[in-house]
Amino acid sequence: MTSLAAELEQILGPKGWLAGDDAAPYSRDWLNRYGETPLGVARPGSTEEVSQVVAACQEAGVSITPQGGNTSLCGGAVSGRSGGVILSLSRMNAIGDVDRAAGTIVVEAGTVLARLHDHVEAQDLIFPMHLGAEGSAQIGGLIGTNAGGSHALRYGMMQDLVVGMEVVLADGTVWDGLRAVQKDNAGYQLRRLFCGAEGTLGIVTRAVLKLYPAPKQKATALLALPDIQTLVDYGTYLRGDAGEFISGLEFFCDLGLDLALRHVDGMEFPLESRSPFYLLVELTTSSAMVPLDEILEGALTVGMENGQVTDGALAMSEAQRAAFWRLREEQPEGQRLEGAQLKHDISVPPGKLASFLSEGAEVCEGILPGVRINPFGHLGDGNVHYNLSPADGQTDFGDKAKEFAEELGALASRLQGSFAAEHGLGRSKIALADHLRSATERDLMVQIKAAVDPKQIMNPGVVLKG
Amino acid sequence: MTSLAAELEQILGPKGWLAGDDAAPYSRDWLNRYGETPLGVARPGSTEEVSQVVAACQEAGVSITPQGGNTSLCGGAVSGRSGGVILSLSRMNAIGDVDRAAGTIVVEAGTVLARLHDHVEAQDLIFPMHLGAEGSAQIGGLIGTNAGGSHALRYGMMQDLVVGMEVVLADGTVWDGLRAVQKDNAGYQLRRLFCGAEGTLGIVTRAVLKLYPAPKQKATALLALPDIQTLVDYGTYLRGDAGEFISGLEFFCDLGLDLALRHVDGMEFPLESRSPFYLLVELTTSSAMVPLDEILEGALTVGMENGQVTDGALAMSEAQRAAFWRLREEQPEGQRLEGAQLKHDISVPPGKLASFLSEGAEVCEGILPGVRINPFGHLGDGNVHYNLSPADGQTDFGDKAKEFAEELGALASRLQGSFAAEHGLGRSKIALADHLRSATERDLMVQIKAAVDPKQIMNPGVVLKG
Repeated sequence: MTSLAAELEQILGPKGWLAGDDAAPYSRDWLNRYGETPLGVARPGSTEEVSQVVAACQEAGVSITPQGGNTSLCGGAVSGRSGGVILSLSRMNAIGDVDRAAGTIVVEAGTVLARLHDHVEAQDLIFPMHLGAEGSAQIGGLIGTNAGGSHALRYGMMQDLVVGMEVVLADGTVWDGLRAVQKDNAGYQLRRLFCGAEGTLGIVTRAVLKLYPAPKQKATALLALPDIQTLVDYGTYLRGDAGEFISGLEFFCDLGLDLALRHVDGMEFPLESRSPFYLLVELTTSSAMVPLDEILEGALTVGMENGQVTDGALAMSEAQRAAFWRLREEQPEGQRLEGAQLKHDISVPPGKLASFLSEGAEVCEGILPGVRINPFGHLGDGNVHYNLSPADGQTDFGDKAKEFAEELGALASRLQGSFAAEHGLGRSKIALADHLRSATERDLMVQIKAAVDPKQIMNPGVVLKG
Repeated sequence: MTSLAAELEQILGPKGWLAGDDAAPYSRDWLNRYGETPLGVARPGSTEEVSQVVAACQEAGVSITPQGGNTSLCGGAVSGRSGGVILSLSRMNAIGDVDRAAGTIVVEAGTVLARLHDHVEAQDLIFPMHLGAEGSAQIGGLIGTNAGGSHALRYGMMQDLVVGMEVVLADGTVWDGLRAVQKDNAGYQLRRLFCGAEGTLGIVTRAVLKLYPAPKQKATALLALPDIQTLVDYGTYLRGDAGEFISGLEFFCDLGLDLALRHVDGMEFPLESRSPFYLLVELTTSSAMVPLDEILEGALTVGMENGQVTDGALAMSEAQRAAFWRLREEQPEGQRLEGAQLKHDISVPPGKLASFLSEGAEVCEGILPGVRINPFGHLGDGNVHYNLSPADGQTDFGDKAKEFAEELGALASRLQGSFAAEHGLGRSKIALADHLRSATERDLMVQIKAAVDPKQIMNPGVVLKG
């Protein structure tokens, strides 16, 4: 046992320090692409223990990688160096009392998102962050990656939902930024900086989160639309006419529908005819007095009368609503079960979605003729999960993965969008980032990283080259 | 003429460089408390000129203070050093095209807020930042100070309304962060860091701002309530029941009303009886189908039936709505005309407002018996402008200003709030900040500043000691 391992076991006790085979379940990312064998896994039970672990690692010059639910799609939560320490926040999962007047709650970083949902929904409140991994993703990881998800159009990303935080810095010092107010201009917006830093500037241990009143009504529709520009135009109309109420504006295409229906059990398609594109619209309101169904029906009628919407169904029950959402949510699973895939997490201004899809298709066809393109995602914020399956009869993409990522990322950048919309950079997108972002932008990040973590022990090799 | 002045005049031409008497109008803050005589005022017409000015100042080791509308309440927009350069962005005031599908617009930093309002409102959109200085405040200054205002509860602060920006860094390099998407997780959230940095990390030259659909309906009420706790409780009820629609939730007290009615011309009080506290509620919706008046009337009836609301009036015309808002907006003017004043820009979680006001009153009475307290502000986010007038028969506060600021700031901090809610630190609150914020927090900011502006030429003496 190294002296650092012995020291960490001393700090954390036997249940707080896992090594050898016990550490194995934490060692690799869930796509099984990244993760060197760590020295061990530290499982602190308190901020004080996190602080001691970080200070010991700093002293020993050993890297620390914080890990939440380990659902990163970019390899951000496993060690890039053999002998690094993984810091799992799972034991720190306390949920504090709701402050109803402020609309806030304090939680520890290891709290699983779905558990927080249940906790606050029992009190007629919501924490409006929803994404596929919510059954395992933890608050600390969601903050570290600045998670987005399907409600970001209305409620913002994680950076918009965190009003205060506690962070253990690279030397073990604890920054107490647990303020519980929206307005705090006493200097730099540090909590915004730590949000999205993927554990490279410090380890978030607790956070004050914003809550919203639970909806008293929901109205959900699945619509068919003939092409992407019509989809965008209809979305723009909805945002003008039902702006306050839109809590979901999700799209997918017919290839994605086909894959989901073929591969995933228990899926039902509620419309009479197939169409190039589909739009899931969900309106919610916390007022009992809003004629929400009529508003959605009215919008649907407008769309049908002017030919934008070719078919549509309103959810008449909770079960139907869930079935509509499954069509969207099982898009990744349908594609995964089809075989090899390439995932790209792009965002472009919604008005440029049509350009992105048409130019993107040309780019893809140029790189690998016949490659099948399955774009789906969040219309309201222009976030496209632009996923590829091999051409019919093919089983892989040859050596073209990098070319796809670079060309599609460059196209998104040209359209004032982002090549890394909501999944972060992790380890997997650093080379891409260095290719696509300006040296000025990278240097700014390098300067900030060097200032806050001079020994480069905080999750090195994530966000920036290690 | 110094060689730097000659160089700047060469770069900017005669209308771009003001010195001597021509520079005087830019030299002092509008409360006339700060501002050393500058070398001159640079008025660049383009980002390229800003870049050249900054590079020249960097080379000469001369400080640069960006100035927008010069309405800072904290002395943040004038030079702290004799011979520093003031950089006025006023000539850079171009407004770009609206991107309706994305709900965004690109503007130059010198654009005056009210002009932007007019521009987008003519296209049935709003830019939802409203504050007293909107007739002169510029976008760059609003970003630099992370402005809040009266609509922050619903739409957020400036950091929530900026999706992309262009910044000239300390060495003159231009960072092009003019992306137009909500979701951009390609590394650290730099735009959030520059927002609120008060020009100490770089100079914002252009920004991509979020727009929202213009309301199709508004409903406004002025209510009387017996005490602060009832006000908070009623606000909590409103946020649950009319959550989506609340775009204003502003409070003031009877002393503030009295000062406004006595000192400001043309004020009318629409209720039958006076009361310790008043609440201005404004609901807006972009849907034509919401029964907005009924929702507000219903909420008012609930409040009256359970004794929370003792009197109330609904605005029946645009003129009445404007008259209600004037009662709130002229609070600062009423107090200013009363004579000497001390202003404190505090925020606390709304549920702790009652504690803050009762403990704050004890603190103030202990420091200077009889001092008159006039709290008003934004109920939804707990932002209290906690202003003091001298006791009856007194004309000043003796030497107690610092003690008031420190004690009230410490009280806000204990309640998980902020001693600098929406006005920033500027020059006037640095000593207070060093007294109230932790060394850990200050050191983080110092490290970031040193990394990004190693020669300390960007607005030194603002946010952090110069």
